[in-house]
Amino acid sequence: MTDSYNIAVVGATGAVGSVMLKLLEERNFPVAEIRAFASGRSAGQTVPFKGGELEVEELTASGFEGVQVALFSAGGARSKEFAPAAVAAGAVVIDNSSAFRQEPNVPLVVPEVNPGDIKWHEGIIANPNCSTIQMVVALKPIYDAVGIERIIVTTFQSVSGTGNKAIEELFNQSEAVLESGDVEVNVYPHRIAFNVLPHIEHFHDNGYTNEEVKMINETRKIFDDPGIRVTATCARVPIFNAHCESINIQTMRPVSVDEVRRLLLAAPGVTLFDDPAANEYPMPLMAEGKDDVFVGRIREDDSAENSLNLWVVSDNLRKGAATNAVQIAELLAGGGLLE
Amino acid sequence: MTDSYNIAVVGATGAVGSVMLKLLEERNFPVAEIRAFASGRSAGQTVPFKGGELEVEELTASGFEGVQVALFSAGGARSKEFAPAAVAAGAVVIDNSSAFRQEPNVPLVVPEVNPGDIKWHEGIIANPNCSTIQMVVALKPIYDAVGIERIIVTTFQSVSGTGNKAIEELFNQSEAVLESGDVEVNVYPHRIAFNVLPHIEHFHDNGYTNEEVKMINETRKIFDDPGIRVTATCARVPIFNAHCESINIQTMRPVSVDEVRRLLLAAPGVTLFDDPAANEYPMPLMAEGKDDVFVGRIREDDSAENSLNLWVVSDNLRKGAATNAVQIAELLAGGGLLE
Repeated sequence: MTDSYNIAVVGATGAVGSVMLKLLEERNFPVAEIRAFASGRSAGQTVPFKGGELEVEELTASGFEGVQVALFSAGGARSKEFAPAAVAAGAVVIDNSSAFRQEPNVPLVVPEVNPGDIKWHEGIIANPNCSTIQMVVALKPIYDAVGIERIIVTTFQSVSGTGNKAIEELFNQSEAVLESGDVEVNVYPHRIAFNVLPHIEHFHDNGYTNEEVKMINETRKIFDDPGIRVTATCARVPIFNAHCESINIQTMRPVSVDEVRRLLLAAPGVTLFDDPAANEYPMPLMAEGKDDVFVGRIREDDSAENSLNLWVVSDNLRKGAATNAVQIAELLAGGGLLE
Repeated sequence: MTDSYNIAVVGATGAVGSVMLKLLEERNFPVAEIRAFASGRSAGQTVPFKGGELEVEELTASGFEGVQVALFSAGGARSKEFAPAAVAAGAVVIDNSSAFRQEPNVPLVVPEVNPGDIKWHEGIIANPNCSTIQMVVALKPIYDAVGIERIIVTTFQSVSGTGNKAIEELFNQSEAVLESGDVEVNVYPHRIAFNVLPHIEHFHDNGYTNEEVKMINETRKIFDDPGIRVTATCARVPIFNAHCESINIQTMRPVSVDEVRRLLLAAPGVTLFDDPAANEYPMPLMAEGKDDVFVGRIREDDSAENSLNLWVVSDNLRKGAATNAVQIAELLAGGGLLE
């Protein structure tokens, strides 16, 4: 075990990659050496780190020599192509793409939920989908206390999950709409400014989007509960950052709203923000830039036995991606699991 | 029975009132005389109608002489104060506020769903809440064919439902955010631009908002089914016009997605728009300015027996308010129910 570690961030110029660098700094991760990788297009640019600038290197299979932890966030195709090389060079890969999430030998880890799963990795640990992470963090304390039978979730997802291009698109389109100018549509199949798209990633034959399928399958894997019943509807809304989720759950045993509040108050990574009389409920604006998952609007649903509604908001670039990945690295380092 | 009718629009300068005038014109409602009422503040302004301009009169209790149908959309307090005077003067009031919706002697009518209820009015017919109207129009064909046991709905509501001030607020705040200027918050308790507020109307003690309570109670009254189980989560999103709803239903008897499609294709007031492979699904942008309720993303929910997910979008100023009110007036006129 060493005291500090050689880290690589793959996709360092992207929306998530740049937050990964920021978080390694903010959380004071023990970095010995750090390297920033991106596509050839971005090589030679610099990215800020600890008051200085890191030169971005082109991602190649031979570039991982000496790297102990490689944080990947450059899309599934890059992960599939380059993660094996990083592992072969001795690194543990923490992969933010969906490339390996359902592989049986790849743990899918949310540190507040299933930290023990990092132990059985074989070189790659997958970071779950943003919408799944915030949901399982909020539900874990309830799941442990009274069991959860069924989850019905509807998401309100920001554009930052799509990347920097989508952030620019929302900005430019919004400006064009306000100024009655020409709206260009490039990133999504339809205008996102002042619109809602019930469409995130491609459609499967059963009519569900890939994002919806991920929420179902990843929840089962993270809770290690293939029988948990989940259905999801995922929509893109015209906000820059942070996702909202309207979640309806049916628990195995009765639980009161007060008891759920107590459970969430004691839960790691969760901030209970639930005082409607004072207009206090989670919103993207208040969650942005924070690492916690915010939960509010907790109320009994008398339309079915043992049912509750909750409203869950979190910064999808942070807890939904970069924070969770850096927390996994911290678990590895703290557990003496890095060579 | 006359062939054309004296109509009053109360709240004629508001977001809904101005669409009511436009619809009376568009739908060629047989208008003999038309009068536009608003608060004293707006009196003397003009509003467009059939190529000319109507002078707006101050709303007073004595102003309804000769009026046969009064379309009210000026808020609950004005309806409570002035609707009885309109009824006393011989008018039928079609009231868009929530003031009378739960009164036992006031029918709550959606023409595609419960047209027969107009017959038992005693002077006032209530127009339901915007979010309720689009939901019951979409669900009615399924309700009739196989029964519905439970509805779990999450709404994405535009600002136009709050009125012209909110439309301006979204515009001004969006501009300020894009230009890094000062954002003023006046209409809602928090900024709405590039944000989501899980808060529509005041909170009840059980944690539900009044909007959520309306969706539950109004659905029961319109379907004349006090036992139907409904739960709702209502959120305001930063779009100008048209509401989206993510609806999960449990039916009494099994029904396939194909059968639901066939039912909706044959349903009045519904446009089936459900071809995900071609990126075709309902969105605010495509529903705006149209009178129908658009339904798509219909899919089986295998997390419970006999369950389905649907995505329903409609223009809340039109079918959610003005169109529905004018359709009620048409029913009255067509049925010989106006004196």
